[in-house]
Amino acid sequence: MTLNQAIETLNRVEKAVYALNHAMDIMNTDGETVAPKDSWRVRGEAMAYLSGLAYQELQAPETEEALKTILQHRGETDETTFRRAEVLQEDYEDMHVLPMDEYVAYNQLVSDAGAVWREAKENNDYASFAPLLEKLIAARRRYAALKAPEKPAYDVLLDQYEKGACMETLDPFFAAVRQDLAPVIADVAAHPKETPAFLTREFSVDAQRHFSEKLMALEGLNPRRCTLGETEHPFTSGPNKWDVRITTNYRSDVLGSLYSVVHEGGHALYEMGVADELQCTCLGGGATMGIHESQSRFYENLIGRSRAFCVPLLKIMKESFPEQMAGVTEDALYEAINLSQPSLIRTEADELTYSLHVMIRYELEKAMIAGDLTVAELPAAWNDMYQKYLGVTVPDDRRGVLQDSHWSFGGMGYFPSYALGSAYGVQMLHRMEKEIDVWGSVEKGDLSPLTAWLGEHIHRFGKLKKPQELLSAAMGGPLDPSVYTSYLKEKFTKLYHL
Amino acid sequence: MTLNQAIETLNRVEKAVYALNHAMDIMNTDGETVAPKDSWRVRGEAMAYLSGLAYQELQAPETEEALKTILQHRGETDETTFRRAEVLQEDYEDMHVLPMDEYVAYNQLVSDAGAVWREAKENNDYASFAPLLEKLIAARRRYAALKAPEKPAYDVLLDQYEKGACMETLDPFFAAVRQDLAPVIADVAAHPKETPAFLTREFSVDAQRHFSEKLMALEGLNPRRCTLGETEHPFTSGPNKWDVRITTNYRSDVLGSLYSVVHEGGHALYEMGVADELQCTCLGGGATMGIHESQSRFYENLIGRSRAFCVPLLKIMKESFPEQMAGVTEDALYEAINLSQPSLIRTEADELTYSLHVMIRYELEKAMIAGDLTVAELPAAWNDMYQKYLGVTVPDDRRGVLQDSHWSFGGMGYFPSYALGSAYGVQMLHRMEKEIDVWGSVEKGDLSPLTAWLGEHIHRFGKLKKPQELLSAAMGGPLDPSVYTSYLKEKFTKLYHL
Repeated sequence: MTLNQAIETLNRVEKAVYALNHAMDIMNTDGETVAPKDSWRVRGEAMAYLSGLAYQELQAPETEEALKTILQHRGETDETTFRRAEVLQEDYEDMHVLPMDEYVAYNQLVSDAGAVWREAKENNDYASFAPLLEKLIAARRRYAALKAPEKPAYDVLLDQYEKGACMETLDPFFAAVRQDLAPVIADVAAHPKETPAFLTREFSVDAQRHFSEKLMALEGLNPRRCTLGETEHPFTSGPNKWDVRITTNYRSDVLGSLYSVVHEGGHALYEMGVADELQCTCLGGGATMGIHESQSRFYENLIGRSRAFCVPLLKIMKESFPEQMAGVTEDALYEAINLSQPSLIRTEADELTYSLHVMIRYELEKAMIAGDLTVAELPAAWNDMYQKYLGVTVPDDRRGVLQDSHWSFGGMGYFPSYALGSAYGVQMLHRMEKEIDVWGSVEKGDLSPLTAWLGEHIHRFGKLKKPQELLSAAMGGPLDPSVYTSYLKEKFTKLYHL
Repeated sequence: MTLNQAIETLNRVEKAVYALNHAMDIMNTDGETVAPKDSWRVRGEAMAYLSGLAYQELQAPETEEALKTILQHRGETDETTFRRAEVLQEDYEDMHVLPMDEYVAYNQLVSDAGAVWREAKENNDYASFAPLLEKLIAARRRYAALKAPEKPAYDVLLDQYEKGACMETLDPFFAAVRQDLAPVIADVAAHPKETPAFLTREFSVDAQRHFSEKLMALEGLNPRRCTLGETEHPFTSGPNKWDVRITTNYRSDVLGSLYSVVHEGGHALYEMGVADELQCTCLGGGATMGIHESQSRFYENLIGRSRAFCVPLLKIMKESFPEQMAGVTEDALYEAINLSQPSLIRTEADELTYSLHVMIRYELEKAMIAGDLTVAELPAAWNDMYQKYLGVTVPDDRRGVLQDSHWSFGGMGYFPSYALGSAYGVQMLHRMEKEIDVWGSVEKGDLSPLTAWLGEHIHRFGKLKKPQELLSAAMGGPLDPSVYTSYLKEKFTKLYHL
């Protein structure tokens, strides 16, 4: 096969895989948002069929040969083509681990499990989800054992979401976070604040829906390219930069949805910022989930929970909720959105205690994937850890082990991305502060200079650069958890006058 | 190829085509409801790629041989398998008309045109849609010429939506309708009623959304299997009976959305009523579009605009809109939902003048497909016909030639299905009235006996029976337009005391 023939094959296979992935992406998003509940009875099988077609394209001997040919000719193709072959080769190897039948069956399992999990959570019925969770864990363990039998299974899974992440580096990372933050968390707990009255008022779902539009405009999300849906567990998806979907979930508590929108909006800005020429190629999405979460948590916390952001935020909150927000000042809002207290739900946790929620999941996943914790034992283990690390009693599985969607899609190994992303973001912010007037812009309600900075350093590259290279360039050095914990210590020491 | 091998091939091909159609169905519905506007830049190409995969499956020599084998062995397979082969053979022949490249390009054109049409309508910009409409007409003419060069092109297209429909029978059908109804319409116009005050009140979109849920419950639509979306032009879709989507469009006028929901709900009940064992086969949908419209317009008009329906309808309207509906009686509501006056918008037209809207489109399509009317001339021709037949002046293309989505998806030949369906429905109702207590059930707000009757006579069969056979059995005889026009004459003579 000549290099030109190889590139032609790459183009053809990539186009086929893109179209199939596009379809599966939309079917999945639809299934998690607007589809009728019973639709899962067929959707999983239809999606699995499409996944089989993608398998056939990518695992064809011709594809294998084309990728090999291009990778042997480094320097003879442009950088983008070479990198496309590199990334597609990784996808090829990931997929190659399982025979097609098993790969297709796994895709159906994941699709079905999502639907079963949603109903299980709604009905607080862990038992109905447990058999699927068992199959998912078995499938992930099997995948890991086949992919890299020499490594601990959980390391293989971690690497899927954050290239290079492994227990050897994550154990000390979480230890450092826990050690640095434990005294602050204890100190804060000793100085509890009352929940301000406005947070206990009723915010109607209809009014929140209208407010979300304003919030998305404030974040700079182009509504022609990004729409907002409703789901049980918020996520961001979309096959390309012109077709991005964020989701939220409305409760009577206004802050829950507010920060879901801002968080998912950060993911969306990343997707929408990838260069046009990378769209619909295998380089067209975010580099890793850790880097993706660095963007979402940047907007959610570093910006969204900053004092400066309270200026434009209060303005639109008063427009949308004039009665509920009457008399609330920027300072009061700033205190309210940074109330810190150990709580049950990860996505609603404050910045300070958040990493403990992630750490708990990390420890549980480690044990499950190592085979040290069974599905039957999991809820009790979950509840014990919430008692131990956060001091809260889990009242039911809905607000406990069933709260997150990740395990239902086989995402064991995903959670550490949130903690890593939070830490990456602080180091990016420190660099950004030196180069642009971050807080002046935020106060004016103009986030575009921030998004432009992130676009320049992260977004536009998609998967073109290798993750570690991209990350160190954007952070100006390697990950240093003490930068993250110092940021939190300083913020909460001030907020709580410690 | 043995019969058993042929049946195996049929099963395999049908499964593949089903999965691809499922994906395209969801992508299309998503594109017309919640997808961001710019998403059309890629969606059309991705969908077209999937359509090419379906083409390859269905046009494979092995498929051709399998279908031929089964069709040669009538009596040696069960009825369902034989009919599946028959219907798949029709699909095969339809698709076979065009080479794959052209088939794929047409699918992309249809997808893109839908997005362009939506924006053109929104911006009242016919010029932006015209080039796509030209391509669509050319493509449809070419398809017809290749499919059956011996027939008039428009007849070939009519047959796609209503098996056997042709100008030779539709010309006299529309002539009879026009002749019978023209004096009634003139008489009604001479006795105009004032619009009742409650119809001029503001019905907020949020309140209408909540109302729609009650309306769907009243119609008996299982929310686990059917959900409601919002779109520019209401439609019903869904790949199987557990996954049906209806759509509506909220304006400040409450009746517009109300009757969209009831109409689309009729389509949905049909889809949800097809027998389980036909699901995900090529027999799993409605028999023809004319029969489909007979179900939607049955619920919309024969039931939804009946005096009996005003009893449960007023009840839920008063719950949802207590202020706007204060003091409104059942009789006043009955008069209001049957106000007859020539108007601009087909989907909002009253029952009496509705067929004239369809007739206008029928005449325009005939001329366009025959090559007697250009895309440039179309808007003026549209406006002239509205002046001539309905006596209304079209103020802009948004409320004129751009109002319907059908031409944007290449649906030239679809419109007559609405008029035929309306006529079929009356004949079904007359049979139903003899067998069950239709109006007693409707007054009680229980439509389930009606849906069960239609389920028994129409829904459950899907495409299992041939359309004409299904229809005459359900109507108890052949189509007789005078039954339809008599029903309308009687209803409006009473309503307007003529």
